[in-house]
This record gives sequence, C-alpha cells and structure tokens, in this order.
Amino acid sequence: MNSESQKRLTARVKRIAGQVTGIERMLAERRYCVDILNQIAAVRSALDALGVELLTRHLETCVLGHGSGSEHESAAPMSQEQLLAEVKTALGRFLK
Amino acid sequence: MNSESQKRLTARVKRIAGQVTGIERMLAERRYCVDILNQIAAVRSALDALGVELLTRHLETCVLGHGSGSEHESAAPMSQEQLLAEVKTALGRFLK
Amino acid sequence: MNSESQKRLTARVKRIAGQVTGIERMLAERRYCVDILNQIAAVRSALDALGVELLTRHLETCVLGHGSGSEHESAAPMSQEQLLAEVKTALGRFLK
Amino acid sequence: MNSESQKRLTARVKRIAGQVTGIERMLAERRYCVDILNQIAAVRSALDALGVELLTRHLETCVLGHGSGSEHESAAPMSQEQLLAEVKTALGRFLK
Repeated sequence: MNSESQKRLTARVKRIAGQVTGIERMLAERRYCVDILNQIAAVRSALDALGVELLTRHLETCVLGHGSGSEHESAAPMSQEQLLAEVKTALGRFLK
Repeated sequence: MNSESQKRLTARVKRIAGQVTGIERMLAERRYCVDILNQIAAVRSALDALGVELLTRHLETCVLGHGSGSEHESAAPMSQEQLLAEVKTALGRFLK
Repeated sequence: MNSESQKRLTARVKRIAGQVTGIERMLAERRYCVDILNQIAAVRSALDALGVELLTRHLETCVLGHGSGSEHESAAPMSQEQLLAEVKTALGRFLK
Repeated sequence: MNSESQKRLTARVKRIAGQVTGIERMLAERRYCVDILNQIAAVRSALDALGVELLTRHLETCVLGHGSGSEHESAAPMSQEQLLAEVKTALGRFLK
C-alpha cells in the first residue's frame, strides 16, 4: 500500500475514533436513545466504507500486484488462489 | 435508562474506542490488510451489539414504559404510534 | 397483525420472489457478474425493508398490544420482559 | 465463469427461491412474527453467501483472469483499474 493510501485510510480511522468518542459523550449526557442510535449507524457506515477502501487497496497491491513487489510480505509467499480464498473469508466476515 | 444499563453501554463504547485505536495502530505499523479487515469486522459486530442493546433499552424505557415516567424527556410528548414510527426509521438506518 | 398489514407484507414477499427468479435467469443467461451482484444487493435491501416492517408490526400488535387481544397466540403467554428479550435476539440475528 | 461454478451458484439461488416461498407461506398461515423474522434473517445470510461466492468468481475470472480469455465480454474492454473501481462500487452497495 502506498503512502497516499495509508494517509487517507488513517484519516478515515481518526474520524471514526472521533465519532466513537461522540457516542461515549452522548451516553454520559443521557441523550435521547434514538439520537445515539443514529450516531451508531453513522459509525457503522464509516467503518464499512473503510473496509471497502482497504479491501480494494488489498486487491490492487497484494492480489493483482502479486509478484510485482507491491504486495505485503504476508501475501508474497501465497498463491493467487490462496489470496482469493483469503479475500472470500474476509468478505464473509463482513457479510455474515 | 437506569444507571446499570448506562454503565454497561458505556463500557461497551469504551471497548469499541480501544478497538478503533487498535486499527489506527495496525495501519501505522503497516500490518497485513486482511488482519486489519478482520479487526474492522470485529468493531462492526461490536457496534451492532451496542445498537441492539441500546434499542432494546429504548423499547423498554421509552416505548413500553411510555407514560410511566421511565421514558426520556424527548419521548414523553410523543404518542406510542410516533415512537414506533421513530423506531422503524432507526432500524431502517441500520438495515439499509 | 391486521389484514391490511398482512396484504402489504405478502405483496413485498411476492416482489422479492420475482427478484430472486430474476437472479436465476441472469445466471442462466450468463449475464455480467457485477450486474448480478447489484441485483443481489437489491434483494437484500428489499428483505431488510420487509424485516423492519414485520418487526414494527410485531412491536405494535404483540409487544405494545400485549394483553389487548391483538397479540399473536404465541406471544399471549409471554411476559413483556420475555417479549423484549425475544426481540433483542431477533435483532441480533439481523445485525450480526 | 466455468460451468461448475454456474451450477453451484444456480443451486444456491434455487434454494433461496424456496426459502422465499417459505416466507410467503408463513405469512399466509399467520405464523408468529418472530419465526418469520428468523426465516428472513436466514435468507439474508444465504444471499450474502451467494454474493461473496459470485464476487470471488468475478475476481478470479474477470479481474485476475483479465486478458486470459476467461473474463466476461463486459469485462474484456475494461482496464484492471476500471474493474477494481467497479468491484469497489459493488462492495459499497452491499456494505452500505
């Protein structure tokens, strides 16, 4: 994964951390449950977008880029078939 | 919502905040994408469990408990029909 | 659940059945995977909307309406606490 | 996509069609809402598994297999970058 991708992903995670802190504050302030639920749903969407972004980067650098040197050291010794099986498992964890 | 519920929900949110910090650290350490994806999926499950817990508390104290004094001040002026419509909207945000 | 709700829910399920048949046909015609994926995502949204609708009806007739005679015979012998625990479990199945 | 994959995917869709018919019957028989909700959650899981299977086949034959002749005619004129962008959009539809 190149530096630009990593910076963008890190910015996303920091935003999510801020949103989670927001939920904690809403609970402390005894805010209305439905408002807190909406905030939880927003964090969930942000996490999903992060997952999609990260998975796309993984496909690009580790699965398609396999053998080009762009792949992560964990992906290097795997076959493309093994990489696909791994992606399938990861997708299954999101969509279960 | 009583104090015990609030304490349990707050503990859940704190755990989620810790998990999000973990994702940030994994990105910084350039950990393998698939490992980060698994962590994202874990946070998503934890958020969903938090949402289910909070919604159940809301149903108990604000929808069923409507008129008993246990409801939140935002729920008090609403009719049960309006409260149900609101729950439906909140559910739709999670399951969209 | 009154007749009008049941009719509306049945109409939704029939539409979903038609969409699933559409997916079967797309596979037989060897249509482009991404087009089929979009159709699968559409059925998933329709199922979620059906679930939200049904759950809202359940809250209305069986949980809130408990003791009024509007509840289903399976809900009648349960306490409201048991009904809430059951709703929580059902929600957890959707949001897992 | 080879014939074996197509057969397996078609079998999955037929099973899902059967499950949807089951939901229709449960509504007609006025079965308990929570039982119907559980069946809807089961269909949703089956749809997700179908989506994961189909997406993995797509990655194999159209994205990784791009240029090998295994790809679908819709994928042939696209660049791998365009194919990845398309996968990202499709994933986003599932995880929204």
